[in-house]
Amino acid sequence: VVKVKGKIKNLKFKEEGKKLFNWAKASMPVLSNTEPEFVKERPFEGKTIGCCLHVTKETAVLVLLLKAGGANVFLCGSNPLSTNDSIAAYLVSEGINVYAWEGMTSTEYDDAIEWVSDKHLNFVLDDGGDLTVKLNKRKSQEQIQDILLGTEETTTGLIRERALLNEGSLKFPIVAVNDAMTKHFFDNRYGTGQSCMDGIMRATSLLFAGKTIVVAGYGWCGRGIALRARGLGAKVAVTEVDEVKALEAVMDGFVALPMEKAIKQADLVITATGNVNVVGKNEIKKAKNGCILANAGHFDVEIDVKYLNNFPSTEVRKGVTEFNLGNKKIYLLAEGRLVNLSCAEGHPPEVMDMSFANQAYVLRWATELKEKIKPGIYPVPEKIDRKVAVKKLSSIGVEIDKLTKKQKKYLSSWEP
Amino acid sequence: VVKVKGKIKNLKFKEEGKKLFNWAKASMPVLSNTEPEFVKERPFEGKTIGCCLHVTKETAVLVLLLKAGGANVFLCGSNPLSTNDSIAAYLVSEGINVYAWEGMTSTEYDDAIEWVSDKHLNFVLDDGGDLTVKLNKRKSQEQIQDILLGTEETTTGLIRERALLNEGSLKFPIVAVNDAMTKHFFDNRYGTGQSCMDGIMRATSLLFAGKTIVVAGYGWCGRGIALRARGLGAKVAVTEVDEVKALEAVMDGFVALPMEKAIKQADLVITATGNVNVVGKNEIKKAKNGCILANAGHFDVEIDVKYLNNFPSTEVRKGVTEFNLGNKKIYLLAEGRLVNLSCAEGHPPEVMDMSFANQAYVLRWATELKEKIKPGIYPVPEKIDRKVAVKKLSSIGVEIDKLTKKQKKYLSSWEP
Amino acid sequence: VVKVKGKIKNLKFKEEGKKLFNWAKASMPVLSNTEPEFVKERPFEGKTIGCCLHVTKETAVLVLLLKAGGANVFLCGSNPLSTNDSIAAYLVSEGINVYAWEGMTSTEYDDAIEWVSDKHLNFVLDDGGDLTVKLNKRKSQEQIQDILLGTEETTTGLIRERALLNEGSLKFPIVAVNDAMTKHFFDNRYGTGQSCMDGIMRATSLLFAGKTIVVAGYGWCGRGIALRARGLGAKVAVTEVDEVKALEAVMDGFVALPMEKAIKQADLVITATGNVNVVGKNEIKKAKNGCILANAGHFDVEIDVKYLNNFPSTEVRKGVTEFNLGNKKIYLLAEGRLVNLSCAEGHPPEVMDMSFANQAYVLRWATELKEKIKPGIYPVPEKIDRKVAVKKLSSIGVEIDKLTKKQKKYLSSWEP
Amino acid sequence: VVKVKGKIKNLKFKEEGKKLFNWAKASMPVLSNTEPEFVKERPFEGKTIGCCLHVTKETAVLVLLLKAGGANVFLCGSNPLSTNDSIAAYLVSEGINVYAWEGMTSTEYDDAIEWVSDKHLNFVLDDGGDLTVKLNKRKSQEQIQDILLGTEETTTGLIRERALLNEGSLKFPIVAVNDAMTKHFFDNRYGTGQSCMDGIMRATSLLFAGKTIVVAGYGWCGRGIALRARGLGAKVAVTEVDEVKALEAVMDGFVALPMEKAIKQADLVITATGNVNVVGKNEIKKAKNGCILANAGHFDVEIDVKYLNNFPSTEVRKGVTEFNLGNKKIYLLAEGRLVNLSCAEGHPPEVMDMSFANQAYVLRWATELKEKIKPGIYPVPEKIDRKVAVKKLSSIGVEIDKLTKKQKKYLSSWEP
Repeated sequence: VVKVKGKIKNLKFKEEGKKLFNWAKASMPVLSNTEPEFVKERPFEGKTIGCCLHVTKETAVLVLLLKAGGANVFLCGSNPLSTNDSIAAYLVSEGINVYAWEGMTSTEYDDAIEWVSDKHLNFVLDDGGDLTVKLNKRKSQEQIQDILLGTEETTTGLIRERALLNEGSLKFPIVAVNDAMTKHFFDNRYGTGQSCMDGIMRATSLLFAGKTIVVAGYGWCGRGIALRARGLGAKVAVTEVDEVKALEAVMDGFVALPMEKAIKQADLVITATGNVNVVGKNEIKKAKNGCILANAGHFDVEIDVKYLNNFPSTEVRKGVTEFNLGNKKIYLLAEGRLVNLSCAEGHPPEVMDMSFANQAYVLRWATELKEKIKPGIYPVPEKIDRKVAVKKLSSIGVEIDKLTKKQKKYLSSWEP
Repeated sequence: VVKVKGKIKNLKFKEEGKKLFNWAKASMPVLSNTEPEFVKERPFEGKTIGCCLHVTKETAVLVLLLKAGGANVFLCGSNPLSTNDSIAAYLVSEGINVYAWEGMTSTEYDDAIEWVSDKHLNFVLDDGGDLTVKLNKRKSQEQIQDILLGTEETTTGLIRERALLNEGSLKFPIVAVNDAMTKHFFDNRYGTGQSCMDGIMRATSLLFAGKTIVVAGYGWCGRGIALRARGLGAKVAVTEVDEVKALEAVMDGFVALPMEKAIKQADLVITATGNVNVVGKNEIKKAKNGCILANAGHFDVEIDVKYLNNFPSTEVRKGVTEFNLGNKKIYLLAEGRLVNLSCAEGHPPEVMDMSFANQAYVLRWATELKEKIKPGIYPVPEKIDRKVAVKKLSSIGVEIDKLTKKQKKYLSSWEP
Repeated sequence: VVKVKGKIKNLKFKEEGKKLFNWAKASMPVLSNTEPEFVKERPFEGKTIGCCLHVTKETAVLVLLLKAGGANVFLCGSNPLSTNDSIAAYLVSEGINVYAWEGMTSTEYDDAIEWVSDKHLNFVLDDGGDLTVKLNKRKSQEQIQDILLGTEETTTGLIRERALLNEGSLKFPIVAVNDAMTKHFFDNRYGTGQSCMDGIMRATSLLFAGKTIVVAGYGWCGRGIALRARGLGAKVAVTEVDEVKALEAVMDGFVALPMEKAIKQADLVITATGNVNVVGKNEIKKAKNGCILANAGHFDVEIDVKYLNNFPSTEVRKGVTEFNLGNKKIYLLAEGRLVNLSCAEGHPPEVMDMSFANQAYVLRWATELKEKIKPGIYPVPEKIDRKVAVKKLSSIGVEIDKLTKKQKKYLSSWEP
Repeated sequence: VVKVKGKIKNLKFKEEGKKLFNWAKASMPVLSNTEPEFVKERPFEGKTIGCCLHVTKETAVLVLLLKAGGANVFLCGSNPLSTNDSIAAYLVSEGINVYAWEGMTSTEYDDAIEWVSDKHLNFVLDDGGDLTVKLNKRKSQEQIQDILLGTEETTTGLIRERALLNEGSLKFPIVAVNDAMTKHFFDNRYGTGQSCMDGIMRATSLLFAGKTIVVAGYGWCGRGIALRARGLGAKVAVTEVDEVKALEAVMDGFVALPMEKAIKQADLVITATGNVNVVGKNEIKKAKNGCILANAGHFDVEIDVKYLNNFPSTEVRKGVTEFNLGNKKIYLLAEGRLVNLSCAEGHPPEVMDMSFANQAYVLRWATELKEKIKPGIYPVPEKIDRKVAVKKLSSIGVEIDKLTKKQKKYLSSWEP
């Protein structure tokens, strides 16, 4: 009998979770091919790893790889709505300690983070910074003194952790996995781009062709979303506060304009800015009847859900809330939470393969270091980043050119 | 108490069905805006309409409109797997006679068609030709003598009905709604294009970017699929037997080559040819490990499922069957049936709005004719077709240019 | 010494013309590969062919092929501005009778057509209908009695020739080469699409990315132009008078609206409608400062050049006329004539290869007919059309699938 | 009478040059709108500026702006083939000292750089580093002691200048204008992307649709080229030596593979790597008959022209050299030099507007500094970079969002 460590919905879902895990693993060749190495080397023998991650099939592939490498893993979710309960069940059945289920209350969500943060951790894997902030702000130095390293998966988490560093309260080093080339070039663009379309289609079943879609934010996520929305036949407008990004959107053939104007024409608005109230009361007032609002940012703060909640509402489809504003109806997806995770399955396994390979390799690298790293925010070592790319290319059978001696010499020998 | 006429899964699903119906109706403005006219005119008063259609939320909008126009409607499904049971329940609760549920056996499916064909019909709405063939081949002249008109929604159905005509056994006129400009330019291209992507994403959750996808057939459906697959970042190859279409695929920037060669590189194959064994034994033998097979054609004959069934199989995700061929694994979606209907919700309501508006208007037009039309295959009157386009444009707020007098004169007065 | 038959600018340009001819020929494999057959068969032995075609390097490949097949060819231009004088020179040096130069006056242009129409013709090749109209309206029955067949290359020409037919004055049969699948699917879309971009870039050197471009007309030409303008990074709006085409533009992700509104935002307008005054006085008044106007339609009637000529003008670059309207400047390309031919080199040889192969094969086919065809407008025989596609595919090394016996049987044996 | 200072082809071309200048200026609103400020402020009063830039219509707008700001400008070309002689004439007529003409020999080209470097310079504007290297390596400290600052426009130049810095021979500070966001995001991608297509179309007149095009290098230039080639309908393959960029190309839907394999299928190869012999002897041997080679990199070293010159050659069109390798013909554009500058007009004015605005603003900023900057490579101050973006957006009428107080607070106040 498996002893449930932590708290999940129901262990009986484990078979379903196993299938999902296997399916994801087959599309995560970088991590899969690393397993034999980890089994042999056991780099995490005796180490305890605390993870605050979306409990998805892809995360399962990562944490079971860490376990295969010798780690004792404690896992909580990084969002109250994003846990797949069958994956949680399967992980528990495989010896991972999990405290997460779909539909946690805020208190339960906080309890889960508390539960992980109370373990005697050596490594921290974070997605959004909730666990890292808790450890640095609410735990004693003694409790966290054996943490060698944390890693962070998101832009949002890094902003928070940089704030910790600036105010002098960051007590262990953080590696910004989010900033790895093989993470943010791929995960934020191709992953978010497609998975948002996927979530919106599942939630609404509506046609993109011929629609007017407004994308708020033209960072890597916004770019991916705008590209895929266009790829599905929509007319796409972009809103930005950054002049260079706005100009780039224009040159990419998109209309750029302020949200107040954009929303008047919008059939669908997707936010990906990392900021609050991007679609606020004023903007909602200008939206046309039937406008659909979706958020692709980490927190559910981009759309002013509080304002919408002043109006009578009803769930018209799973994940679609209709608000009756009197003169018009507005539809909100997933209560304003991450639409790709809440309405679909988050990033496809192929991109998480690269993000998570950075995580796994950074942890292994940290075990090999002679000295403890000082608190700070560090980039993923370029060697690791490139290794992930090389492994990915080889896993999909892509061969690339090599510099010849002559070419290397040329690059290093300009006339001067 | 609603008296269930026909046979459905369970009436208790009706509330769920009502929500889906309302959601679809809101995105079907052409049909919705026609309702007041039909309520007032009652064009179908005293008429019985037999429908063999996918029992989806969009179909519900059509058949309830026909009922609002006075019709007595009998509905069976046009595919054993495509019925939405909550829609069936809702339709029954609204007074439609339905004989359909998801997962019918072949015998049950045939019983359903038999059940509709035994009513005293005045109109026939068909999707694929099963009902029309049954009526013309298996029913007496007496039984079908009051059928004024049939309509057909698909290419496949029309091929079968033309065969009936050629062999002299077509006994009532058929209007080829499939061939209306506002149907096949839109439904087959934008509808199939997007809904196939939707079905494949829901079934697999995999990334399209960077994948090699092979589309079999470059008709309107294949064009839509290829366009959307590229729009999601895939490299797309096309197979064709028609030299002009193959050349068009090449000029559209796709690789064109025979399936035997294409499948060697394919991560995913999508068939949309209307023919048998497009991915047959020989092709499957050449597929690479992990290749996913999906069908977008009307019948489940395009992939050689029979051959695959020689190998051990397991359902690894809902709608995904893994076949272990020893040296490799092949994945089949939806047992080779229509992937957009089986794994997602079929065409989005916006395109069905136009297809079905053609249906509804053709039926109304038929009630206004002085004389009975002779058996034959007829196009949708251009006036109706254009009216659908005009109503659609106005519903989405698009204004277009009008010819000036001078321009009309110019067009009609070339020098000679 | 070559005796100049007809009238050209200067024979000394022939070497330049020969180079251009050779360059085009290398990219016209269907025609090139047909040469040995024609040389052997001499299908046009003793026949006189009158051609009214743009005198370009591609046309040179066609007419020299006809000559290689035994024909005596008389060639005039089909537009006063589109003749390449070096090609004209080369053709004369190779024994073709040519009456054309760049920059003819209207009278000279008419003289040229007169000159061809006075020969004793057996075949007529036309591009726009000027020669055909002249022959049918201005020449005696006796003079044209040996004309076996005419062919027409453009939509515009066919409209005029149908008008001749309707009024009973068409005296010989016309084959609508324009309507061949391997012509209008390719030439009008890919040819016009790219060559318009080419012409506009050469004339203006301006950036497309980020610009707002309005395309008038969403026929095959308009589609090609809109697609390529988007492919170069522009935001594209479409104007149409046909509701179905307007809807198609919307579904393809373009903005559709009336020209009066569209032109307010336009950096560039390109007309491709076949109608007059598409950009008329009212529209020009609403254009913004700096707006560029270009025409891609056959005749220079789509932009109201007459109205523009009320204002002071200056040629600011070759092919670019600036009109100073007081409150703003408007730029007109190529005096409102076909921008792809006037500012660049017309359709690329690859597409003309197919159009012209249809011409050449239709003429050969006509020599093989037992009986004279009656006056009327006829399609290119499908066999010829498909042969062109097959030859093109083979010339670029593309292999396609063949129907198996089983598949042929399936297509012909639906259940009924 | 204008006294020609320096050396140009012929002053009589000045009127043509004036037209070109005016045309470019109208599309360079950032620079144009800066003129009144410079005229008023005269920031360069008494300063001598040495420029080594492509002598194009856009460069004319920059150097005349500098002159309007009080500068005495000496200009030589940055490539022996890229000078527009009419622009050179116009500049001289306007008081700029120019030493450049189209088709200089290597010696003449070097003389020109020598001529500029011998002036008593205060600022240096460089494109490729030839002038900067000359000044730092061949001139005495005394001669260059009054140089306040140099700027560099290209990646290639910066590589060379970093080498100078590393070996300790860089004697004045360089601002890397190439690395400004408003330069390399736009100029290298949209500018190079379009202008290469333009150059290739002018040189060849061939169709892109359906062709197989290989792009060597997936940096900003390569990305732009690949995007536009696809936008014109080509199938595009990418070669790379960098694994992350190769992976990005794959995810963008391109085929990635080594040049040796890619060239076997290529109709056209475009190099944009900054390295030597990317298409070397081995690759050329594997090219198919008719393959066209073009270079988009700064130096004519990417294609092994020396190897090609072993074979008989002939110029078949302006800018197109045919090499007869016995078993096949290979076509080289512009002798392997920058195809966009040699066969078309280089970057469109709209992108040069931003690049050159960075140049002009950096120079003004340098005049305002209290202290001399030490030798080194410096970024463009972000404030200048953003100002260029703001001015550009406003010139094209694009309005963007502003952060609200609440949003600013949110960004700066994460929970910790």
